[in-house]
Parts: sequence; C-alpha cells; structure tokens
Amino acid sequence: MTLPSESTMATLNETHDPALRSWVDAANAPGSDFPVQNLPFAVFRRRGTGESFRGGVAIGDQVLDLAAAARSGVFVGAAGAALEAAAGDKLNALMALGPASWSALRLALSRALRAGAPQETALRSCLVPQAQAEYDVPARIGDYTDFYTSVHHASNIGRLFRPDSPLTPNYKWVPIGYHGRSSSIVISGESFRRPMGQALPPGASEPVFGASRRLDIELELGIFIGSGNPRGEAIPMAEAESHVFGLCLLNDWSARDLQAWEYQPLGPFLAKNFATTVSPWVVTLEALAPYRVPFERPAGDPQPLPYLDSPANRGEGALDIQLQVELQTVGMRAAGLPGAAICRTSYRHAYWTIAQMVAHHTVNGCNLQPGDLFGSGTLSGPTEGEAAALIEMTQGGKKPIALPGGESRTWLEDGDTVTLRGWCEKAGATRIGFVTCAGTVAPAALS
Amino acid sequence: MTLPSESTMATLNETHDPALRSWVDAANAPGSDFPVQNLPFAVFRRRGTGESFRGGVAIGDQVLDLAAAARSGVFVGAAGAALEAAAGDKLNALMALGPASWSALRLALSRALRAGAPQETALRSCLVPQAQAEYDVPARIGDYTDFYTSVHHASNIGRLFRPDSPLTPNYKWVPIGYHGRSSSIVISGESFRRPMGQALPPGASEPVFGASRRLDIELELGIFIGSGNPRGEAIPMAEAESHVFGLCLLNDWSARDLQAWEYQPLGPFLAKNFATTVSPWVVTLEALAPYRVPFERPAGDPQPLPYLDSPANRGEGALDIQLQVELQTVGMRAAGLPGAAICRTSYRHAYWTIAQMVAHHTVNGCNLQPGDLFGSGTLSGPTEGEAAALIEMTQGGKKPIALPGGESRTWLEDGDTVTLRGWCEKAGATRIGFVTCAGTVAPAALS
Repeated sequence: MTLPSESTMATLNETHDPALRSWVDAANAPGSDFPVQNLPFAVFRRRGTGESFRGGVAIGDQVLDLAAAARSGVFVGAAGAALEAAAGDKLNALMALGPASWSALRLALSRALRAGAPQETALRSCLVPQAQAEYDVPARIGDYTDFYTSVHHASNIGRLFRPDSPLTPNYKWVPIGYHGRSSSIVISGESFRRPMGQALPPGASEPVFGASRRLDIELELGIFIGSGNPRGEAIPMAEAESHVFGLCLLNDWSARDLQAWEYQPLGPFLAKNFATTVSPWVVTLEALAPYRVPFERPAGDPQPLPYLDSPANRGEGALDIQLQVELQTVGMRAAGLPGAAICRTSYRHAYWTIAQMVAHHTVNGCNLQPGDLFGSGTLSGPTEGEAAALIEMTQGGKKPIALPGGESRTWLEDGDTVTLRGWCEKAGATRIGFVTCAGTVAPAALS
Repeated sequence: MTLPSESTMATLNETHDPALRSWVDAANAPGSDFPVQNLPFAVFRRRGTGESFRGGVAIGDQVLDLAAAARSGVFVGAAGAALEAAAGDKLNALMALGPASWSALRLALSRALRAGAPQETALRSCLVPQAQAEYDVPARIGDYTDFYTSVHHASNIGRLFRPDSPLTPNYKWVPIGYHGRSSSIVISGESFRRPMGQALPPGASEPVFGASRRLDIELELGIFIGSGNPRGEAIPMAEAESHVFGLCLLNDWSARDLQAWEYQPLGPFLAKNFATTVSPWVVTLEALAPYRVPFERPAGDPQPLPYLDSPANRGEGALDIQLQVELQTVGMRAAGLPGAAICRTSYRHAYWTIAQMVAHHTVNGCNLQPGDLFGSGTLSGPTEGEAAALIEMTQGGKKPIALPGGESRTWLEDGDTVTLRGWCEKAGATRIGFVTCAGTVAPAALS
C-alpha cells in the first residue's frame, strides 16, 4: 500500500504538469481560470430550472456534472466513492471524506479530462456550459469563524477605532478570530439590503436609528473545513492542513457606523451578520500547491508559540494568491464602464497561516465539522493600494476615492456592485483562478 | 375561523387551570416539575439502546413518546400534523411550524393527558419512564447567539475587566449580543475537558500556554427560535415572541484567563467555544405565561428606542423564572454531600427581554432559522447572592467561596460538577419546572 504522503506527492506532480491539456478546448486557452490543473468544486444547476443542485467541477467554460458522472460509473474505488459523495446538493459529504479521497478524485478527474482520455465520450455528456449554470453556497455551513490574520488591516483599522493602541497586545501571539453568522452567508450574485441599526453620530451622546451610512466591504478568503475533529481533541499543526478542503473568495460586508457603536465589549454583531458573500468555486489546497511560499515573521517579532509552529508552516505555510476588488456604481453601469479596481493585493502578506488558524481554533478542544467556514479576515497588504476595505482606503471616510466617470466614494451607495477576484499566476506554473465573488447593495427596508 | 389570538388565550386559560390533574399520577404530586400544565419538549431515547432519538413530552415521571403517539393516530388536524413533526430526531420541524401549531398540540396534549381522557389507553403505551431515558440537544442549532442582558452581570464583570468604565456607553441602548459556537453545544450530563490556551500571567509581558486556571460558569437561559424570518426582513416587537418556541437552562462555561487575553478587539472565542451545556427540556412560552411580569427600566435610564419597545413588552415582557446554581466537588461526592447552592436569582432582573433580543437581532435583516439558539447572558441579579458566575462571586478570584465539607473554590477544579436548576412557582398557579442542566470538568488533554 502506498503511503498517503507519497501518493499525495505523486498526485501533485502529475496533476500540476503544465504540459497537460484537456479535451475541453476552453480549458487550454491562455489565461483560463479553469485549466485541467485547477479542478475546483461547486454546487450548481441549470439556471431557471427546478433541478436539484449537485456537485460540479469547473473545466474551461464547462461544469462537469458530478451527479451525472457518478451515474455513468466512470470511476471506481476511492475516486468513485468520492464522486458519489459529491453528487448531493451540498459538498459536506465529500468534505467529510478527507484528503486521501479528495486526492483520489482529483487524480481521476485529471486523467479523465485530459486530451486523449478514454472517458471523454462518457463525460462529454455530463458537461453543462457555465453560461447556463447557477450556483448555491457549496456547503451546509454549521459554524462560520472570521479571523483577523492581516496585521496591516489590524493596524490600519485599529488606528481608526483605537488611536492610542492600534494593535492590541495579543495580536502577534494570538490568531484572533470570532464567530460569525452562518445563516446569512449568500452566494455570489445575490443582493442584500443596506442594514438598519443604531449608530452614535459624531459628538452625540445618544444613538440614532436608521439605515447604515458607512457601508463597507472586506476582501477575504474563505476556507472550507473538510474532515472535522472530535470535541476535546486538538488538531496539531502537522495535521492541520489535512482538515482543509479548499478556498473561495469572501466579502464580509460591514456597517462601520453600527460596528463602532455596538462592538464593545463582545465584538461585531449586527454590523456584520446581515450578509456575507462567498464565491461558488472552492479551489483545493492541492490545486494551490505550486503557489506555496515561505511564511516568515518580520525581524524582531515574537516567534509563534510551539502549538502554532511547524517546519512545514515556516517553509511553505503561506499562499501567493493574487486578489483584487472592483467597484461599479449604477452610473458606471449605465455608462457602460466596467468595475474599477480599487484594491490589488496578495494573500501572501497574511500574518497567520491557514494551518495556524486550524490549530488555534481547536487547541481548546473546540470541534470543527465538515463544511465549517473560516474567513481569513480582511487581507490588506503593506502598501496603500493594498488596503482591502473602504475604511482603510478612505482613512475612515475622510478621503474619497475617485472612480472612472467622475464619481467618487467614501462608503458604498445603493446600487453599487462590488466584485472580488482571485487568481494564482507565475512563470513555470499554470494559472489557477477563483473567478469572482460579487454582490450588490439594495436600498434599506425602511429608510 | 377563530382568530389566533383568541384561540391562544383560550388555550392558555384552559391549559393553565390549576385544578387540572393528569392520569399520570406523578404529575399531580405537589412540587412536580412536570404537571399537565407544563408539557415541555425534548428529544430522547431509552438509555443504552441503539434506538433513534425522537420527540418527547414530559408528564410527571414519564416521557410521552411523540413518535409512538403519532403512530397511534390519537390527534388529527393541526395537532396531528404537529405531532408528526415532533417525531423526528430533532425538534426543528416542530419549531418551524409556528405558534398556531404549537398551541394546537399543547391543547391536544393537555386534554389527552388529563384524568379521565379517552386517549389514556392509547397513550399509556407511549410512556417511557424518565429514569430509563437519555436525551440529546433538542434541535439542530444552525446559529447560536449569546446575549448580555443582565446589567448586574455587565457591571460586575466590567468592573473586573475595565475598572475605568465597567458599563460600556452602549449598554442601556443596545441589547448586546455576539455569535457563539454551535458545534460544541452539548446536552446536560456530558463532561468536557478543561481547555488549553494562551493566558497572560499577572505582570508578564508574554503569554504562557497551558490548561486554563480560571475556569468558570455562566448561569443563563437558552431561547430556542421557532419559525424564522426571510433575510432582509426584520421581525417587529409585536411579532417577536411568536418566533420563540421555548426556553431551557444553559451553562456558558468560560475560561477567564483565556478570555482576558484574547477578547480584544473581536470578543470572546476560545474562552467559550470548548463547551456550552443545555438542559434537555424546552419549556414553551405558553407554559410560562402565568409567570409573566412587567418589564420596567430603572428611573432615570433611557427608554428603549421605538424598534425595541412595545406596550406588551412593558406590560408583561419579563419572566419570573427562579434560578439556582449548585456546585459539587469530588470530595463532596465521596462524602455523600449534595451539591451546594452558590447562587439563587430570578430571570426577572434581566435588562432586556426576549422580544427585544429577537427584534434587535433581526432589525438589520439578519435571518433567524428554526432551531437557532439564543443565550440570555449570565443572569446575575442585583445582590451578592444573586451573582451568577464565579468571577463575580469571588471578586475575580480574590475571595474564595466556602463549600460544605470544608473545601473552598475560586475557580472550578477537575471533577467539579455544576448543576443549574430552574422553576416557576407562585400562589394561585401551578409549578413549572425546567429541571437541571449539569456538566462535569474533566482534566485537560495535555496538562
């Protein structure tokens, strides 16, 4: 029997070969987000039909219908069992199977979707054009935890909320996180109403009630947990990544005026829980393997405590994922202007890694479950153009940003659409895309 | 067609009549927690069997098996449909039906369990002695929100964490809440390991990692949401209670040393999410109706904003539920000593009502779902004996509490069992019991 680690290495080497081409032509186009080296998972159905959602894998401009593929019996063994688990309306069953199964399915899909594969005929009938597909949140999310892993974001926002101590004393020791709201996590493309709530106007001693006037975005990555851990048993660093199924884009919409008034002493609540948007495609850690980079602390910073440290984490714990935020107003849309890029950064700047999030979250015995979601926290990078929330870009609303067409913004206005994009690209490796996470602000219910 | 409100009033009047007696003898005993006027819901099975959990209603010393009752076909119409919904392994389907169905089922159960009821023969075969039953968490809890509704607790604990500003400026305006962890909510009787984590020793500049040394309890009530609301649509005060299925006891175990170090700026996380214990029986708002009391703000305090105010809330928004905390050490158990009461208070002292929690939580469009759980927050009352957490009783660990048998405690030690009790009692009404919510501290995994 091959050891899992050897099998995993072989899968990685074989499935990432830049020379691989697919029998789905669009997967081979330069700049494709979905080459045969990516193979991300979603749940989808044909738009406008009453069909059930089921698992799908992106290849070029198509979705491979995993329920149809399972019925065709193309895969056997571990890959076949994983395919069956991916046929339901959420990916939890696949997520629960663990990394050996995910790896087996990835390898089987890679081989079957390659040019010349004998499965082409059987699988061609399982393709649905992405142009005809609609998506749902990919998992039943039991618990959603939002972290705070960018020291640049923590410093920028801390300066605005607590000028005397921007970075709390725990920041460089604790991968800070808090629990978010699962019920209001929505799929890319859905709109949400501007939230109502209490805010304390500048200089006032009593709050006012109304629609939020300081509606903001937060550019984050979402991290889907695969197999969980029993309550009471921590996941050590060495095993942490084996519990991670994959990553998506996440927009943690935030009402800054509500947040400033409500967040002491127990943290953000109504300022965040009205909506959180995720992108449909979950990119696996295996797909991202070529984009691993060393994780290094700045000189002079404390080293992580032993339970948050491992050689692998130092060597390749970080991921170089390119990220961009685009904003399109109603006026820009009317004028035919595309969304304007207002932030461009990389996930490599995060101060805490995914493995550290998993190890920290469970060190007290907290049990994770398949389909649980982590947010990375706002992924601001070190420079001004890398600020990943309006509150940072506009210095708390004091410095508007200019948009093409002559408009400007400090905070989001009704009708604004925000689109997050993510991709990995470098010489010698194939581009891996996340595509988009979009949402539009609808007017408040009662304003 | 009878209007729901009239039907509800008729149900209340009929089902609360103190003269009602049950054909289950133990329900008629003075001091019974489960008279025919209570009828709380749980999910249960015969202990030590591989049976499926299913819904049950407590009557005297018995559980009425709702799956068996549904099969017997005793109820028709709305009550029959509600009985079917209660036959599964969680109560979510029953919770989702809404108050007219809950009321119909309560009335049917009340009539069928009364002395002389023609259903006695059919239902007698559906009884399981409570002495043979074990219970599970009654609902699939999608999201768990913990509130902070005791101004006495907020002031007591604020004084320890923030001596300069014990009560944050928002406290009397905002029913403060934050999201908790659903996955680690456990049923009464389960133990949990003392959590590991980071803490900053007094005077130190760097944290240490180890087992928590300041393990605490929080006496709370749990509030199960029944029917939910669509995302984007707030629940107004006038409708808020119609979304509440019922109440249980809840112990929000807390590691104070972890909490003090981690909680800034996003709130408690690992200090709380290792375990939260709930009692098995969910007591409905209808059962609690005789114990409603006016909700009044202290003179000079601001009145609630309009979205948090209603005549009914002022008139009868609070509930007079008696609450008690008992602590039993390993030594006390060995010596045959019962748990010692270390706190005795009432829910009537809360600063914010259940209706206000629901209205606030949804005012920004956040969607609640059937089976969601709220915690009331630690229910400390105004006097010293009403402090509902060790951190308050011991003034932050400085003043140990003496226990029978000669031991004392500042914080929980391994093997300690904490039992919460709740009940309603007054002249002219029948006692309504919650019974107990118990948990035991197991040693840390790595200490």
